[in-house]
Amino acid sequence: MVKQALEFPNISKKRLQDEVIPELLQWSLSNGLTMYPPTFKLEETMTVPMTLFPTYLPKDSFNEAIKVQKIYNEIYAKIAQNKDQWLSTQSDILAAHDPEFIGKLWKIYHDALNIGVSQKNSLGIFRSDYLIDRENDQIKQVEFNTISVSFGGLSTKVCELHRFLNDTGRYKPDLTSFYSQEIPISSSSELLAKALSRGVEKYGPTASPTIVAFIVQSGERNVFDQKILEYNLFKNYGIKSVRLTLHEIHEKTHMDPDSKRLYLASTQQEISLVYFRAGYSPNDFTTQQDWSNRLTLEVSYAIKAPNLLTQLSGTKKIQQLLTDPETLHKFIPDKSWMNTILSTFVKIYPLDDSPLGQYAKKLAMECPERYVLKPQREGGGNNIYKHDIPLFLQQLAQQEWGGYVLMELINPQPTTSNIVIHGDKQFKEPILSELGIFGYILFDNNEIFENEYAGWMLRSKFASSDEGGVAAGFGCMDSIVLY
Amino acid sequence: MVKQALEFPNISKKRLQDEVIPELLQWSLSNGLTMYPPTFKLEETMTVPMTLFPTYLPKDSFNEAIKVQKIYNEIYAKIAQNKDQWLSTQSDILAAHDPEFIGKLWKIYHDALNIGVSQKNSLGIFRSDYLIDRENDQIKQVEFNTISVSFGGLSTKVCELHRFLNDTGRYKPDLTSFYSQEIPISSSSELLAKALSRGVEKYGPTASPTIVAFIVQSGERNVFDQKILEYNLFKNYGIKSVRLTLHEIHEKTHMDPDSKRLYLASTQQEISLVYFRAGYSPNDFTTQQDWSNRLTLEVSYAIKAPNLLTQLSGTKKIQQLLTDPETLHKFIPDKSWMNTILSTFVKIYPLDDSPLGQYAKKLAMECPERYVLKPQREGGGNNIYKHDIPLFLQQLAQQEWGGYVLMELINPQPTTSNIVIHGDKQFKEPILSELGIFGYILFDNNEIFENEYAGWMLRSKFASSDEGGVAAGFGCMDSIVLY
Repeated sequence: MVKQALEFPNISKKRLQDEVIPELLQWSLSNGLTMYPPTFKLEETMTVPMTLFPTYLPKDSFNEAIKVQKIYNEIYAKIAQNKDQWLSTQSDILAAHDPEFIGKLWKIYHDALNIGVSQKNSLGIFRSDYLIDRENDQIKQVEFNTISVSFGGLSTKVCELHRFLNDTGRYKPDLTSFYSQEIPISSSSELLAKALSRGVEKYGPTASPTIVAFIVQSGERNVFDQKILEYNLFKNYGIKSVRLTLHEIHEKTHMDPDSKRLYLASTQQEISLVYFRAGYSPNDFTTQQDWSNRLTLEVSYAIKAPNLLTQLSGTKKIQQLLTDPETLHKFIPDKSWMNTILSTFVKIYPLDDSPLGQYAKKLAMECPERYVLKPQREGGGNNIYKHDIPLFLQQLAQQEWGGYVLMELINPQPTTSNIVIHGDKQFKEPILSELGIFGYILFDNNEIFENEYAGWMLRSKFASSDEGGVAAGFGCMDSIVLY
Repeated sequence: MVKQALEFPNISKKRLQDEVIPELLQWSLSNGLTMYPPTFKLEETMTVPMTLFPTYLPKDSFNEAIKVQKIYNEIYAKIAQNKDQWLSTQSDILAAHDPEFIGKLWKIYHDALNIGVSQKNSLGIFRSDYLIDRENDQIKQVEFNTISVSFGGLSTKVCELHRFLNDTGRYKPDLTSFYSQEIPISSSSELLAKALSRGVEKYGPTASPTIVAFIVQSGERNVFDQKILEYNLFKNYGIKSVRLTLHEIHEKTHMDPDSKRLYLASTQQEISLVYFRAGYSPNDFTTQQDWSNRLTLEVSYAIKAPNLLTQLSGTKKIQQLLTDPETLHKFIPDKSWMNTILSTFVKIYPLDDSPLGQYAKKLAMECPERYVLKPQREGGGNNIYKHDIPLFLQQLAQQEWGGYVLMELINPQPTTSNIVIHGDKQFKEPILSELGIFGYILFDNNEIFENEYAGWMLRSKFASSDEGGVAAGFGCMDSIVLY
């Protein structure tokens, strides 16, 4: 670590207010680094929360995270292939502990099996999230996301913004560049569009061009992150897309009862790929119809990104199980790679009746300050931290404890000299940064056809906050300078 | 005119609301086709008013407007060269009629002359605006703008939006393209940045790179139109820029008393080009200091886009004088070109004591419905239309009448099937479209160094409204399909 390299620009309050913040906000608004405000109006947008400067990241840690992405893609694809019914076995258990969500997804999967799953190919679009341990710069996995991974579009934009601010000299009073090294730009906005195009291609030849259905939440504020992928998918591959909510599937699509091919009802265009940017949370299913719609999509011949097995492979429970070397070995025969992956894990415990579970319950009660308790949920805002854990568990029926995992907290080095821009407010508080690596993998029950890295994102949150969801208001977009 | 070609997409109300309007608004917000809302907050923006579809324009009229742009550039550059003091003579007269604005600009020019004008080069960035006569498709010039021509940045964007909507099939229920011809994209956002770069280049070699000062209004809502040029100037030519208001020049810049070179005070960077996106309206000058700042800029060695003579050559009075063939001939020796330019004029009369002025006063009182009365002002909202003219003139001191010109109204064909999108509101009312052709010209007192066409814009307004300023709220951005 070259200490010199870790200096941050020193900008006077006046120049910040008069020049730098307006430049940053206007670049963001002019270039789509935006999200809808809580007071949702279709025709108005606002800047996303973001840092003023890129955050320093150790080059070796960054490269390590990229290096393991394809291995992780492969592990999760293999889990989703469900060989020896391993995922089924785990999902059976998890479904019992979490009947309201995992249980229902699992039931839908079985309903689909009964009807018959016509499409064998699956597209996994993943993001593996890491914090970097302050002791040894080791990347430590926070979670592995197998559905609705977000910020791949906006990540590229915030990199471009920081590079623009540096190159135009906004970080220095004399308008020269502050960072001598080039600020890297995540290729996620291009590569995730490429991932979608590969799914469409895999679908196979059709008489007329097929389209991609983006399954989105109604009232989604993070629309522009998704639109960037839609635009790149059309610009780079000529592939058109539609946006549908889970609530609309039965009205706006039509499935041929024989071929199970899925069509957009209004145009009779064939949907080759169903890309989920919703369906990861129980809140996305408001009626029985929504569940039924999810089932329709699952049994349709359209390729899903992801299908239910791929989605279910992304639970915290699976992550916990993978920290056991014997389990991990099932999915990575190579010992050296296995050890590399193991080094990215912190300890994660079940809260079940196994001996390890018993031990974990004791830890949760006796030294909760070292842990975070996580349910089988995506999207932020669901975790229980440190001293809140004992009371939370005590109020929970014992039957439900098994739906949670207890995870060792990671201790990253806070960044103290960056500034968080949230609309017209600036916060100079210590932040922690979470690195997300995107990847995609195209596979069927037996084979992996394509496995690629797909860019990265950096998301920072106040060190004083425990949650990091940008859309949920707890975190902000960031970019990187390597050292 | 192929009647078939003039059909507009027919979109059901439901599809418009559910699919097309959201796509249009989100593309705009994601791609910077925006302006600040009246409730100005630095971090929030809204879509500009725009049409849903491109508007049909006769190909010959469009090409004619482009063809004459370089001739117009040359005419106005020659006027600004002020040979035989022709512009001075006219400005003397005009200053007397309009002492509050033209008079003050003219005084500043003389003050500058007394101090000494060190920079002989001038950059003209122009826009010639036309309506197309419904009778014969002849382009008729509304006005010629020599300062602060706007919408060159956003014009490119609205073209891209309409092309995107067409190419992705949003205009047709079956998601195929509605327009078989490609929707043209104005190159104005690139070419106006090029114009600025040519000004910087003309400034000549310096020890370190120079910058461009954008002179802007405080509280400008149309910021993003300008930012697009800043971004392209940096991206394509590596030239940095700063934004300054007229009120800040004495604080934020410094002029070397000997060389008259202008510097940004905070960085000591040399300003090679002063690009005015303000200073065209008396409202831009709120104190004596502002006038003094304008003087500083004029005497500085920085190239002005435009200098005062170029700005003054753009008055309505000059346009009126050019409609006289003898006057026009001074600036275009070539008879054929002269006739072409004459064909773009409607009748414009002075309201002075000359015989023609006397005749015009009679017209204004007796058949005002055929005329618009225009003062020497830019920016929209200043004109008096039709039956409002007689009363307006009667209430005006006779001395001031000479500050106005009486212009024959042009009768364009309204477009009845387009839809104007204004935030969450849609208006299906007849619109009239004004074609603006951009150009730039680099010249000194004797010579023209470079003269180029620089893209176009289309601005539409309700046929029921008389004014067309987009920023002023009376008009909207549009694009073109040629037939």
